[in-house]
Order: sequence, then C-alpha cells, then structure tokens
Amino acid sequence: MRPLLTKARFCQGCWQQMHVPIPIRGPLSLPFRVVGIKISQMHPNLCTICETMFTRVMRAKQKVIPATVLFADLRGYTELSEKAEGLEIADLLNGFYDECAAAVWECDGIINKFIGDAVLAIFNFPMMRDDHVERAVQAGMDIQRRWAERQKSLSLDSIVGPMRVGVGIHTGRTSIGEVGRSYRDFTVVGPVVNMASRIQNVARMGEVLVSEEVYRQVDRLFPGAPAREATLKGIEKPVKTYVLAA
Amino acid sequence: MRPLLTKARFCQGCWQQMHVPIPIRGPLSLPFRVVGIKISQMHPNLCTICETMFTRVMRAKQKVIPATVLFADLRGYTELSEKAEGLEIADLLNGFYDECAAAVWECDGIINKFIGDAVLAIFNFPMMRDDHVERAVQAGMDIQRRWAERQKSLSLDSIVGPMRVGVGIHTGRTSIGEVGRSYRDFTVVGPVVNMASRIQNVARMGEVLVSEEVYRQVDRLFPGAPAREATLKGIEKPVKTYVLAA
Repeated sequence: MRPLLTKARFCQGCWQQMHVPIPIRGPLSLPFRVVGIKISQMHPNLCTICETMFTRVMRAKQKVIPATVLFADLRGYTELSEKAEGLEIADLLNGFYDECAAAVWECDGIINKFIGDAVLAIFNFPMMRDDHVERAVQAGMDIQRRWAERQKSLSLDSIVGPMRVGVGIHTGRTSIGEVGRSYRDFTVVGPVVNMASRIQNVARMGEVLVSEEVYRQVDRLFPGAPAREATLKGIEKPVKTYVLAA
Repeated sequence: MRPLLTKARFCQGCWQQMHVPIPIRGPLSLPFRVVGIKISQMHPNLCTICETMFTRVMRAKQKVIPATVLFADLRGYTELSEKAEGLEIADLLNGFYDECAAAVWECDGIINKFIGDAVLAIFNFPMMRDDHVERAVQAGMDIQRRWAERQKSLSLDSIVGPMRVGVGIHTGRTSIGEVGRSYRDFTVVGPVVNMASRIQNVARMGEVLVSEEVYRQVDRLFPGAPAREATLKGIEKPVKTYVLAA
C-alpha cells in the first residue's frame, strides 16, 4: 500500500510549480550545487529553491491552496527530559525525527519543521498530489508503525514508561508561503493548521486522530472508525474527530 | 539601556567559536556568497555556516552549554484565525515576526524558529555573552514594548479584542546542536527549553514571566517583582516564577 520513495534527478517542486527542470542528482547538478542550490531538507526530491524562494517562484508572498496538515508529537517527552540527560534525549529525538521524515517523504509530503518533540508536515505542496489527504493519513499510520518498531529497541520504559506518539490531521484551503520580512519563514498559517495542531493535542497515545473533513475522504480505507467529539482550545464549538487504527 | 545592532563585516559566530574570520559584508564577502555562504536568518551578524554546519564546526553533534531560552506567543491568534482571512493573518504574523526578530537581534540572541504564532530565541550561542540572561530579559521587554506600539496601528480589536503577547524565559545548562540524521535541525533540547515553553504557556497577556533562576540574575533591574507559583504541564512540582514589567 505504501508508495516507495524514488530518488528523482530533477527537483519535483520546481517542475510542478514552474515547469523548470532543476537537476538535484547526477553530474548535471554540479554547477547548481556550486552556486548553492542543493537538495532541500524538506524532501529529498526537492531543491533549496522550493524552500527559500517561494515569493520569487510563486510571484506572491502567500498563496491559498488545498493542503493537508499533519502534526505528530512524542508523549511523555517533557517528563523524560526532566529525568534523562541531554544527550540521551537528543538520541531519542534523532530517532523520532528520522522515522517521521521517512514516513512523510515516502508519501510525498514535506517536513516543514520540527519543534522539539513535535513535527509539522504538509501534503500537496510543492509536489501536488490529488490524493494528498490519503497520503497524509498513510504517513500518520506509518509514523505510528515505525515508532512502535523503534520503541522496542529503546530501553526508556524503565525511566518514564512507554513513550508513544500522537498524530493529528486536518485538511482544507490554507495559506502557504513566506511569513516575516526581516526573518522569512516558509510555512502554512491559518485555521487549518491550528485545527490540525489542536486535534493532535487531544490525540491519545498511539492514535491517528483526524477531522471529519479528512475522514470523509478516507472512510473506505477505515470503515466504521470510531468517532469522538473533542473540545479544542481556542475553538468555540466541539469538533467531530475520528480515530484511525491500522 | 538597549544595545543597538551594529552590522558586523565578519561572522561573529565563526569568530567566537573557531577564531576564523568569515566575511559576510563588503567586497571580501563576494567569493563566499558565490559558494553559498550568506548572512544567516538566525541573526544578521552570523553566516550560514553557524546554521548548517554545527557538527563540523563544533566537532560534536550536540554540546551542553549555559544558555537562556525565550519563548513568546501571540494570544488570541487561534480565535482570530477562525474569523479572519488567511492573508490578513499572514500580515499580522509578518508584524509579529519582524518585531520579535528586531528585539532578539539587538540583544545578540538568535531566532531559532518561528512556530505559527510563537517564537523560540536562544541567547549565548553562537555569540557568547556573559550577560545572556539579562539580554534575554531585555529582548522580552522589548518584544512587549514593540508589540504594544504596533498594536496601535492594527485595527483587529474589533474582530477579536486586543491581541497581546506572552513571554516566558528560563536559563540553565542545555543541549544545543543538530537533531536528526536524515532531517537535520539545529535547535536546543532538554529540560531548560521545556521549562521556558511551559512558563510562556502560563504567562498572561503583556507579561514577561521568568523562572527563579532568571530572576536571581536580574533582580537589581526589577527590584520587588511579584512572584507567582505556577503549576506547569508535565512538571511535577509547582514552579516559582516572577512577573517583570517595564
């Protein structure tokens, strides 16, 4: 079911957004690397132009597009960080970052940022995918599966008990682009992002919790998934969410 | 009282950490720019080597150093983002990012990341400053002052009421460096960061809320600041905090 990551020779973002082939692998990529155009951290099939030149490429500082936003975080991390050493924690986070990145990249999402024990991933930009909702859900399930595997090799249970991941996903039209003038940050802003973050806050350990908008597009893959009403911080009405499991 | 930002010709981070002069301004900086070494987003007196080559420069993936960590966020942002348009929100965030960056940079701190409506700043790396605690507090006060000024020019009160900023600051020995292998992120991790984040969560609108460790180093500047016991998420014991005001 999971698509495998094929390493592209040309930046998939520049191609889809501008129809310009920017070489990122092989001998053709050398002159580009010399002038600082490299493979992006966001995804191994994107180049740094996608990351740092949004305004020039898209001819707008911000664009409103349909996108799916995924948040995942490590539960029990704060407790752990009170008890474990800095370097042990860094090692735990290394594993978390790597598993999240692998899961998101295989589904053609981008890693927008890591924030301590949490990750923010975006699907449908700059690589446009009609099935971005399904891909985000797949990535969420895969983060859980990968972390459960890795958890077995960690011996932290004795310190704080099991550390599990919570995932929250929401989809909708959202503003993407560069925020700030003196410090420019490429990110997504607005209600879709906030909602995804709030949903992730109430996801329980091991869950992939999604909004109704997301569930409607993946219900055939998860028939009869349990619904749960959630009261989310800063959002007036209770929100209907669905718990997805492998 | 506030130091002014002097634009340096050489990267202050590479100089302090390696004693290597990397030109970032003027004609000498041209060959460096051609190979992709530019002024860093983190601070206008740093170069991109400081940002992306921590492991090579420091000869370790992580280092434990004394540092001060500042978090600030915009209160009422989630409510606003439910009611306002994407582009209006981006405009509000532009202002917030710019004011935070200016305040932090003037005090020689670095902008580590923006996370939607929040900022994470670090003091004492890579530019080492003996008075990093005081500088972080100055930056926090300045963020409040600058935002109060800018607030006057915003007409958002009618939509959600006043939008104010909350600031939280903590200091201590913390792990700084690169996390992740496939996705490498330069950041701080561990209990000092978590505590700063939790303190910021309970800071009220317009407050600069600091830990006891911070207050002990700036008490002569803020004699008799009111203390407040705070119960912080994920932290067992209540924590003593101090409310600083201009």
